[in-house]
Order: sequence, then C-alpha cells, then structure tokens
Amino acid sequence: MVRIQSPDNPLVRRLRRMAESPRACREAQRTIAEGVHLVECVLAARVPISAVVVSESATATVRALAERAAEVGGVRIAELSRPLYDSLAPVEYGAGILVEIAFARPELPVGQAVDAVYLDGVQDPGNAGTLLRTAAGAGVRHVAASTGTAFLWAPKVLRAAMGAHFAVSIYEDVSADRLVAAFKAERLAADAGGGESLFAASWGVQPTVWMFGSEGRGLSDDASALAQRRMRIPIDGAVESLNVAAAAAVCLFEQRRRRERGTL
Amino acid sequence: MVRIQSPDNPLVRRLRRMAESPRACREAQRTIAEGVHLVECVLAARVPISAVVVSESATATVRALAERAAEVGGVRIAELSRPLYDSLAPVEYGAGILVEIAFARPELPVGQAVDAVYLDGVQDPGNAGTLLRTAAGAGVRHVAASTGTAFLWAPKVLRAAMGAHFAVSIYEDVSADRLVAAFKAERLAADAGGGESLFAASWGVQPTVWMFGSEGRGLSDDASALAQRRMRIPIDGAVESLNVAAAAAVCLFEQRRRRERGTL
Repeated sequence: MVRIQSPDNPLVRRLRRMAESPRACREAQRTIAEGVHLVECVLAARVPISAVVVSESATATVRALAERAAEVGGVRIAELSRPLYDSLAPVEYGAGILVEIAFARPELPVGQAVDAVYLDGVQDPGNAGTLLRTAAGAGVRHVAASTGTAFLWAPKVLRAAMGAHFAVSIYEDVSADRLVAAFKAERLAADAGGGESLFAASWGVQPTVWMFGSEGRGLSDDASALAQRRMRIPIDGAVESLNVAAAAAVCLFEQRRRRERGTL
Repeated sequence: MVRIQSPDNPLVRRLRRMAESPRACREAQRTIAEGVHLVECVLAARVPISAVVVSESATATVRALAERAAEVGGVRIAELSRPLYDSLAPVEYGAGILVEIAFARPELPVGQAVDAVYLDGVQDPGNAGTLLRTAAGAGVRHVAASTGTAFLWAPKVLRAAMGAHFAVSIYEDVSADRLVAAFKAERLAADAGGGESLFAASWGVQPTVWMFGSEGRGLSDDASALAQRRMRIPIDGAVESLNVAAAAAVCLFEQRRRRERGTL
C-alpha cells in the first residue's frame, strides 16, 4: 500500500481529471467505479483494473475488497486522506473504495433481432444510469445513445447504474438513423404527448427498440421521424409527464410482463 | 423590483438557510420552488407566495412570469447577481426564477378507502421527488413518509417532483403502524428479495398502500411486519434490484393498468 497526501500526485491528478470530466474518461477509455457493490461487480465481470484507491477511513471489510481488486489488477493500493478521496468520488458520501477500470466500446451490431433501448439526449447522469439499470433488469441487453446523451461511462452514470454496465452492450455517439440497420426490431417512441396506449395497444411480439428522449424536450425530430410507432403511458392529468427513467421503467417492464405472460 | 448584491441581505440569508437545510424549511413551513414549470404550478395551484427572486440573467419570458408571481404574492421582485442566485437554487443550472412558498401539513386521514404510497427511509431527494411525480401520474393522491425519508418539501425534492406536490396530500413523520388506521387499503410491500410476482398474482381490486423502502436496505422491520403481502418485480438476474423510483414506477403503473383494463 502507498499513502498519498498530495493533490499533485500523478495518480490523483489522472483520476481527478476523470472525476471532473466525462470527456477525459472518453479519451482515456478508462473510468472510475466507486463503492463496494460496484467494485464487486467489476471483479465478477472480470473488468480490467488499473488502479485501486481507498480512503484512510475505509473499514476492514472495504480494505479486504481493495486487496482482492489490487491482486486482480496487479497494482498497489493507494490510500488517500478523506478530503482527497472525496474529491475523486462521484457521490457525496463515498464508500471509501474506488477502482480505475478500462471499458470496451463495441461496434453497433448489424441486423440483430434483439431488444434494445435508444437514449436520445438524456443528459442527467442519474437518469441515464437508472435507465441502464432498468434496461438490464427488464432483460434488455443493448443500449445505444445519441451524442447529446450523458457519456454513459462517466463515473456518475456508473454509480447510478449499480453494475448494469457490465450486463449490457453500450453503444455511444449513435445517430438515430443507424438504429435501422443495427436492430431488426420495431422502433417504439415513448411520447408524453400522444400516440397509442401502452397498455391497450398490441405490441411487443417482435423485438423492440424503445426510444426515450430528453427530460425537457422529448425525442429529437430526427429520432421521432424514425420511430415506427408512438406509444403513450396513460398518466393522470395531475402531472404533465413522468421522469424519463420512470417512464422507461413503465415501458420496459410492460414489455417484460407481456413476454412473460404471453398476453400479446 | 429591488436589486440585491449582498449575501448578507436578510431575504438572501433566509432563503439560503432553506436552500442548505431541509430542517430550516420544516421549521419555517416554507420552501423554495425553482424553475419556470414549478413556478407555473405554484400559480395554478394558488399556493401562497412570500418572495419572488430572479437572476440578473433571466430572460424577458422569465421576468414576465416573475411579475405575475409577485402580483399574486403581493411582494416585490428581488433581482440577484448570478452567483448569488445560484447559491440559492437547488439545481446547478437554474432557470433564473424561484419563489418562496408556504406549504400545508395535513393530518393523516382516518379510515379512508383510497390508494396511497408509503416511503420508508427513501433518503435521496431526487428519488423521493421522482416517486412523488410517479405517484401523481399513476393517480395515487396520498403519500406518507417515515421520519427517515428525505424531507418531502425540501427544495431538491420539489424540483425533482415537477409540481406533483400540489396534486397529492403529503404526510410526514409517519410511523408505519399509523398506516393501519389511516387507510382502509391493502398494504403491499415492494420487496426485491422475494414474494408474489407483481404480474402473475391477483391484487389491486381493493385500494392499496404501496410501501417502498430505502435504496440500500429496503423496508425496515417495523414496516415489513405491517405489510399484508410482499410483492416482487420479476427482474432479470443481470442486476440485483432496481432503483427505488424505477421500482415504484413499475408497481404503480401495473396497478393503473389493472384498474384501467379491469384485468384483476
């Protein structure tokens, strides 16, 4: 183990750049996974580990996990003062353990008959992470995202997704027109404004690409034009719309229900 | 309009206390509603307004809204420098308008046969706000919360709920045992660990109280003991659980689907 006190230490500087800038993660093809659950997911998924950091206040359990991660990664554990650790963690009260990992950027498939999700301008990292977690929980293993969506490998998105990153294939900088060739599936637009009732309409026999738009403006015109059907969650008039991650949970689990029950 | 430059101005100090401390909101029975949509909801719901603040960078449209709010509240608009405004806003890139409002704290009903939601230790303000919005969208008009839940009238919760606060009755500091007398409804615990399948089981004929636990530990023992049934969302093994607000969206809209379709 090596103790680090200085904010100018090269490792600390490298990690801080990633903590502060999704672009730095994108360029380095590395990111930060923080918290006990996420580090356990990293180990279970055999993701390459290039640094292991603990806070000076980490418990014995957390340190034991760090030792496992360090052994797998072939690196030494870096122990940081609490303020220094906190400056790198994507959440306010971090668990005291984080690892630097490399991630893959797979190519879009061609003509696959599988379920997928398309995120079009979902900017909030918490929403994007929750959406990834929900997609994985609903059995959807392919998530594509537009350039205007939060960078899905950013530390905050990783934290919110709680390990879902390692269960789905993530495609970024995908313009909506590329979905057509990639997925042999019906493109369904979630639309707060109108369309067929999610519950009453017949859908979901074929694989689907569910398309979710930005929190404020919904789907872009480009994405909207490529949707084959517009689907509406029948919400009570008390509110105008749902949070995008909540809307996605309703749509993707209605799909799961239909598949499970055979009520198509 | 009055321009304020000083962080020591009494109005700024009062608002900053509320921005920084949910407890200050609780004690004052006032809170901060930030953003165009939320201020429009405040006006539509005829909520008492005791201060109106704009940022110096507010657009003409935002200023026109501020003028309406000031007229309704019988107060002058306070214009703040951007940094001063940002120090009061519950989000990073605020819309440039916020109002101070009073809120009611209704008593729990007695023996009402209505749908309700119970939040047991949901600590994250974003999750709590999204849950309120989802409940309102699903037609559930009563939300009770344990002492361990985020203070539901805190500015961040208000921001995430996007106006749902004005469509539901909110009861706070409610211990689980008080649900029994308050609602004539079946108490259903959302349980990531086990229970009846949400989709396969027969439920939802009677009114329900859906009980959602904390992000990490689920329902407390007290709340769990009072649930009449445990319901499980059939999630894919790729993830351990869903985000609590996503789980609530699945449960509450499955309820709405059943009510709408009559497939009970």
